[in-house]
Parts: sequence; structure tokens; C-alpha cells
Amino acid sequence: MTEMKVISSERLRWLGRKIFAACGALPAEAAIVTDELVEASLMGLDSHGVIRIVQYAEEVFRGKIKPGAPVTIVKETASTAIVDCGFNFGPVSAVRMSQIVCEKARVANVACVVSQSGHHVSRLGEYVQRIAQQGMFGLGAANSSRHGHWVAPWGGSQGRLATNPLAYAVPTSGLPLVFDMSTSMISEGKIRTLMAEGKSVPPGCIRDGAGNPVTDPKAFYGPPRGTIQPFGSELGYKGFGLGLLVEILGALLAGQASALDLPYINGLCLIAVNPEAFCGSQQFRTMIDGLCEYVTSCPPAPGFSEVVMPGALDFRKRQQRLAEGIPLAETTWADILAVAQRLGIATEETTAERVQP
Amino acid sequence: MTEMKVISSERLRWLGRKIFAACGALPAEAAIVTDELVEASLMGLDSHGVIRIVQYAEEVFRGKIKPGAPVTIVKETASTAIVDCGFNFGPVSAVRMSQIVCEKARVANVACVVSQSGHHVSRLGEYVQRIAQQGMFGLGAANSSRHGHWVAPWGGSQGRLATNPLAYAVPTSGLPLVFDMSTSMISEGKIRTLMAEGKSVPPGCIRDGAGNPVTDPKAFYGPPRGTIQPFGSELGYKGFGLGLLVEILGALLAGQASALDLPYINGLCLIAVNPEAFCGSQQFRTMIDGLCEYVTSCPPAPGFSEVVMPGALDFRKRQQRLAEGIPLAETTWADILAVAQRLGIATEETTAERVQP
Repeated sequence: MTEMKVISSERLRWLGRKIFAACGALPAEAAIVTDELVEASLMGLDSHGVIRIVQYAEEVFRGKIKPGAPVTIVKETASTAIVDCGFNFGPVSAVRMSQIVCEKARVANVACVVSQSGHHVSRLGEYVQRIAQQGMFGLGAANSSRHGHWVAPWGGSQGRLATNPLAYAVPTSGLPLVFDMSTSMISEGKIRTLMAEGKSVPPGCIRDGAGNPVTDPKAFYGPPRGTIQPFGSELGYKGFGLGLLVEILGALLAGQASALDLPYINGLCLIAVNPEAFCGSQQFRTMIDGLCEYVTSCPPAPGFSEVVMPGALDFRKRQQRLAEGIPLAETTWADILAVAQRLGIATEETTAERVQP
Repeated sequence: MTEMKVISSERLRWLGRKIFAACGALPAEAAIVTDELVEASLMGLDSHGVIRIVQYAEEVFRGKIKPGAPVTIVKETASTAIVDCGFNFGPVSAVRMSQIVCEKARVANVACVVSQSGHHVSRLGEYVQRIAQQGMFGLGAANSSRHGHWVAPWGGSQGRLATNPLAYAVPTSGLPLVFDMSTSMISEGKIRTLMAEGKSVPPGCIRDGAGNPVTDPKAFYGPPRGTIQPFGSELGYKGFGLGLLVEILGALLAGQASALDLPYINGLCLIAVNPEAFCGSQQFRTMIDGLCEYVTSCPPAPGFSEVVMPGALDFRKRQQRLAEGIPLAETTWADILAVAQRLGIATEETTAERVQP
């Protein structure tokens, strides 16, 4: 079993900011990246959380992430923009894109912003959540360049898409409703974890290089390299179609061809719709509240204790981990400390340095 | 076994137009409704095809569909509109909405149009296909009012959503790419058909009124009324989230509350994105061609003969049925003839009357 340590979000926030600043990020940008990763960990999305601190730092060392690179609009109209992310940290450019799409939708009522040369954005739900926090409907899609194409098309035996997440969010009178799904049966990271633990993958998720269903991660990694199935089990052609939707929005609109091994990591598309142009902002919020009430009032099915809206369990987890800390594999924590040491950072904060969450 | 008849699309087109005109539709509107139903049948989506001629006529007789009712914009900006469909035939208002959203996106680059008081739109893919035929990306969502709420939320034992289809389309240099999926495991119409045939429903699709998984359609219809599961099998929380997305776009933006039993049938939302504002219209088409080539070049998995893009099989079916005719249950054809007779229509066309497809 993996030994676990529990680290407070405050300490991770403090240390992450130090690490990214030492990597050359502007203080404000170091804070954005750290906060995004800590938020993902707080909400239970550990694969997109502070475990990425080390990966991001290494990408800086390798010149793949360019701290401080300008995030610039290369083409725009009142309602649209193509944003060149300059290979700055993904959360830096994605937060900027969420601001741009909101500014545009505030005036133009519907807006769409896409990226070029973007790095890893971490939790996609974050950026649609930011749109919802501005009172609007937000839709987000994030593809990956060819190197991440583990997911087979329906009926195919080679990877043609990444796990291509799709997300949306809307405001309520409380916490926003945030939905964030991958369009595949499982993530590659999860398969890697299962292999490390000597476990098999649930049936229906992966195939070997010849396209035969398997459950052994080693048969998946090959060679030849196997594939992940699109989301949907026996209706997987639907998940395949959703994956293509993400590809079209995340890559093609911005002019990034799928078949090329371009150096970007995530192609991000954000769409914002301003309810003021429709039923009205206050009415929209009230209607979402009504939908939540209608849906969660549903009597649970056998085996369930309640019906919850998308994102609700993540926000509960956030409250719990804010109070109790974030559980990390000891190796993950050791890796973070090693990166800090390499950067010459004292890893014990003083009281004067404590960051407010 | 059901006895089948094969009727040419020309004959169905001719007869349908006669029937809807006799129902009081303007000739142009009778043509729109008929063409939409015939197209759905040609593409193999029989549940949304000419079988609906009788249903639509009966809805006219009952005063639920109001032929000739004005389809009017009740609120608009340069990029948005709420359209009152006046309970005209669903295809009439939906075609009008697809025109409105394209006109707006041509100028504003991103546009979103939603409906109030709309009847059944038939094949959702049709309206995003029309956006793609204008060279743009089209996204569509269609919810249903409470009477159609057969689909349980994830972990719930009562219906809270309809089968809520989601669709998108993009242009290629050939036929458009058209994706159209329901966000549930099965349609209610399909369950009804299986019950009539004395068959059971595939496992994992339906539950009884207490929320227990069943395969017997009678256990589904109850009483108490059972539920359809959201799309996704063991990952059905994803299908539930997609169903909510459709509900938000199709109903809430237009101010139609989910919990109320409003008289509308489909709440429609269409979004159009003009690629001219992004990588450029010609480049976008070229990139979609490249995506199709990249994906369909994938070697097929065991049990598959090829990898196809969404909608490709429907267009093939269309070619086949244009040539060979549309197979209909004898009872369906008899019902169409009976409605024609009730409206005083001679059901044999003369050569002079023949409609060009």
C-alpha cells in the first residue's frame, strides 16, 4: 500500500507559490497556477491537483513551459478571440481566456474564445466555473495534441483522440453547478496507477494494440500501444461523437490540425452565454435553483442515499479537505519537497509568510 | 412479425404535403414539415420520420398544433433571440430558428437562439445540419416539458428529464458531419415497440417504479411508472450531466421551468459559431476534412469493417432509401392513408402532381 501524508492546503499553497516563483513565474502568475492545482486537489480531482507541481516545474526546466510568456490575442472580434498562450503555464492562459470570454459575452451576449500554444490547463471545470461565477452559462472543451491520442474512435484499433474533457457551469443562488467529464471510459493516468498497484482495469475500458478488449494494463501499454475506449460502453459511438466535438472546438477552430504532432498540450475552447439576453440574469439563477430543487427532490434509487447535482460532491470534498488537509502519497510529497530543494527554497514557512486561502 | 410495405419517398412527400395542407398549413409550411419527416425516414431515423405524419395531423385535430401560427421573435439582440413558435408545427419553427441563428452568426460570429411554445421538432440533427450547410459550426439541444420526463437523474428513482437529445454539425468539402444523440440509454418509443413485440429491453436501460433494474417493459410502465436510465451505463452520471446541459439550454435560458407541466413539446436551443472569425471558413472546412481522414484511416477493431464519422451511415441509408423506397409497417401506411381519407384527399398522385425531391 502507498503510504499517505496529509498536508494542509495552506502549506501547499505557500510552497507551490514559492516553487513557481523560483521557476521564473511572476508572483501573480505563480499564485494562479498554485491556486488552480490546490483547488483541484481540494475538490478531490487529485490527478489534476498538486501532484502536477513537480510535473509543471520539470516542464519549466525542460523549456516546455515558459514562465512569464505573454498571453496575447492574435485575432478577435467583439464576440470571439484566438488567444496565443505562448506556452506560459496552462492555468495562467486559461484564467485569462475565461476573463476574455466573460468580458466579450457581457457586451456581445454570446462569446467564444479558443487557444493556440497552450500548456496543460489542469481542471477544465475551473474555467467554466469562473464564467458561472460571473452569472453566465459557460461551456468548455479541451483537446490534446496527437501525443495524447490514446482514445480509439468507435470501431477503431488505434488512438485518434485524447480523453477530451467537456465541461459546463451555471450560476445558482449558492455554489455553481459545475459539470466536467472526460469523453473516454478511463484516463491514461488511472491505467498507469492501476498498473503500478498490480491491479487490472475494469472490463470495457481498454483494448490491446490489435483492438481486442483486455483488462491487463501491460497489454494496453504494449508495444504495440493499445487504446482507451470512448465513453459509453456498448453505446460508445456517442462518446466518440462527443470526443470529436471537443476536438473540433478545442483544436480545429483555432486552426490546429489533429493529425499533426503539434507542441501544444491542451487546446482550450470557452463559450459564454449571457442570460441577460434571454430570460434575464436573476430569472436564470432562479430557474437553475428550481431545476436543482426538482432534480434533488427525486427519491433515491436502491443503493443511493441521495440525488446530487453535478459538482456538489466536489464542493463537499473541498470543505472537508480545507478543514482536514489534502491526502498525498508520501512519494508525491517527497517529490514536491525535492523540487523545492532543487530550487533552493526553504520548505518550512514562517508565520509571517502564511498565505490566506 | 410486422408486415412491411415499401413506399417511395416521392409518394410520401407528395401525400404528406397534401395532408398538412389539408390540415390548414400554408403550402410552404406543409412542404417543410413533410420534407423534414421524409428526410428523417430516408436517413433511417424511423421513429422521427413519416410515422409522425399521423401524430402531427391528430395534434392539429386536437388543437395542439396550430398550422399557420406566426413564428415570432419576442426578444433579441444582434447575437441572440427568444423565438415564440406559437405551436405551429415543430419543423416550421425549428427551420426558422436555424435561419435566424445563421443570419445572426453571419454578422455577430457567435449566436444563440432559443424557443418558447414549440411543438415536436422531429430530427434534431436536421437543424444543426442546416447550420453546417451555411459553413458554420452548429450545436443543438432539445428538451421536453415535464410530461416527457421518463429519464431518472443518476441515483434517482423517478423521471426528471426527457431523453434530451444533443446534436452538432460541421461542414466538410462533402456531406456535413452530423452528430445527434439522446442523453438516455433508450427512447421511450423503443420500449413501447419492444413491449408490442413481446420482447424484453436490454439490461441496464430501464428501472421499475421503485428504482430496481428491470428488462420487462410492463414493469417499466407500471403503475407506478418506471424510469429510463441516463446514457453511460456504470458512468451514467455523465449522461445525467449531459441531460441537464440540454435542459438548461433548451428550457431554462428561454425561461421555461422544468418542474412545471408546460404545454410545449420541445424546447429548442441552437448555437452557431462562424469559423470566419477563427481559423477562416475555408481553412475550417479543410481542417474538418483532415480530421475525417485522420479518424477514418484508423484500422478497424475486430468485429468492425471500417471507422465512420458521425452521420455517415445515415447519409448512406438516405441514398439507399432514395433509390429503393422507405420500408413502413403496413399498419403505419394504413394509418397515413386513413388520415388522408379523413381529410378528403385522393391518395393516388397524378403525374402532373409529382413533387421533385
